[in-house]
Amino acid sequence: MSTIEQRLAELKVTLPTPAAPAANYLPFRQIGNTVYISGQLPKKDGQLLYPGTVGQDVTLEQANEAARHCAIQLLAQLKVACNGDLDRVVACVKLGGFVQCSPHFTQHPEVINGASDFLVSVFGDIGRHARFAVGAPSLPRNTSVEIDGIFEIC
Amino acid sequence: MSTIEQRLAELKVTLPTPAAPAANYLPFRQIGNTVYISGQLPKKDGQLLYPGTVGQDVTLEQANEAARHCAIQLLAQLKVACNGDLDRVVACVKLGGFVQCSPHFTQHPEVINGASDFLVSVFGDIGRHARFAVGAPSLPRNTSVEIDGIFEIC
Amino acid sequence: MSTIEQRLAELKVTLPTPAAPAANYLPFRQIGNTVYISGQLPKKDGQLLYPGTVGQDVTLEQANEAARHCAIQLLAQLKVACNGDLDRVVACVKLGGFVQCSPHFTQHPEVINGASDFLVSVFGDIGRHARFAVGAPSLPRNTSVEIDGIFEIC
Repeated sequence: MSTIEQRLAELKVTLPTPAAPAANYLPFRQIGNTVYISGQLPKKDGQLLYPGTVGQDVTLEQANEAARHCAIQLLAQLKVACNGDLDRVVACVKLGGFVQCSPHFTQHPEVINGASDFLVSVFGDIGRHARFAVGAPSLPRNTSVEIDGIFEIC
Repeated sequence: MSTIEQRLAELKVTLPTPAAPAANYLPFRQIGNTVYISGQLPKKDGQLLYPGTVGQDVTLEQANEAARHCAIQLLAQLKVACNGDLDRVVACVKLGGFVQCSPHFTQHPEVINGASDFLVSVFGDIGRHARFAVGAPSLPRNTSVEIDGIFEIC
Repeated sequence: MSTIEQRLAELKVTLPTPAAPAANYLPFRQIGNTVYISGQLPKKDGQLLYPGTVGQDVTLEQANEAARHCAIQLLAQLKVACNGDLDRVVACVKLGGFVQCSPHFTQHPEVINGASDFLVSVFGDIGRHARFAVGAPSLPRNTSVEIDGIFEIC
């Protein structure tokens, strides 16, 4: 078993079948060693986790958990890009984090931490990344969080 | 006539004179073979198409058409980056799609499909890309859609 | 003194100690010669400048000044990436500009110009970049502006 798969097993994380894109685009596009992954929603067993507006229908804790599941979806896509071998990941480069929230919400970083903490727990220093965390009035399918990513593989 | 220009002619698409940036920045910046194109608005003959808020003043069909015109503007800029030869395009890498909409809107993917479908109809598999599609409470000049892009050329 | 440091001195700009990220991510991530810098807030002496919603609590002029300070924070991070020598900057590639504003705001470009104009005043043509400028209902810590960036160094 690869190092990263072993780490995922320790964390009791099973990577899902990667979500198919909802339309005429790709789940990821690789150029050289750089993999651009499309915005991922927090799906588990095909269901959208914690839909709604953070700070209204969705708590900070739930949104943080949703962000973690966005990162799990990113990894599921990344594993396909790596032909199944996540040990080929060299760097998590950047996350773009969007939070569906009201005009009064201020804790976007605490939401997106769910993804950042997960990636570091899986990859260690290789998982550390640049990112932005911003609000959106609405997101596809009423998801509370959407995260895209750039990764480097070898 | 180049293959891509021929395809554009079949689709009855005339690339406009690329829109000048509204300020002290560039319509695109090339690093190596990668072209980063600034966020484009859906302009036609210098006019902004379908301004307003999607789901309120602008229908889904109109917003989808606006997204298509954002992609046409991206191609107009990309053609300059290619010194006029769009056959030099190797890959459409990533689109960032922003939809001006209310907190209750959920069909951002269906809007941005207007751009994705257009790129695939022009370039085939080369036109397939990663993307995100998110909402914004407001966008420059009251545009309903804004899309930026990353392309690879040779 | 380096050329760029001299230019900053002429502009009476002192780069601050770069802001630490608020969580488990990096202020920047370098891959090859490309530096991805995390979304920066307009901080000065550790204080957030002009928090609030542009067009409501924050004027266009204040938001433009806030955007300038986001760019100053980007440079502070970039200087670390360059091991202290900003003359190693080859290109400002792209800015992503988010403005906290109401649904009726339309002047996002005029806000983000505060960052674009500053970068060009410091770097000249090297400072010209692609960008997007969009609205958000809310941003971290009630900041009026957040900007991330991609730079090329040698």
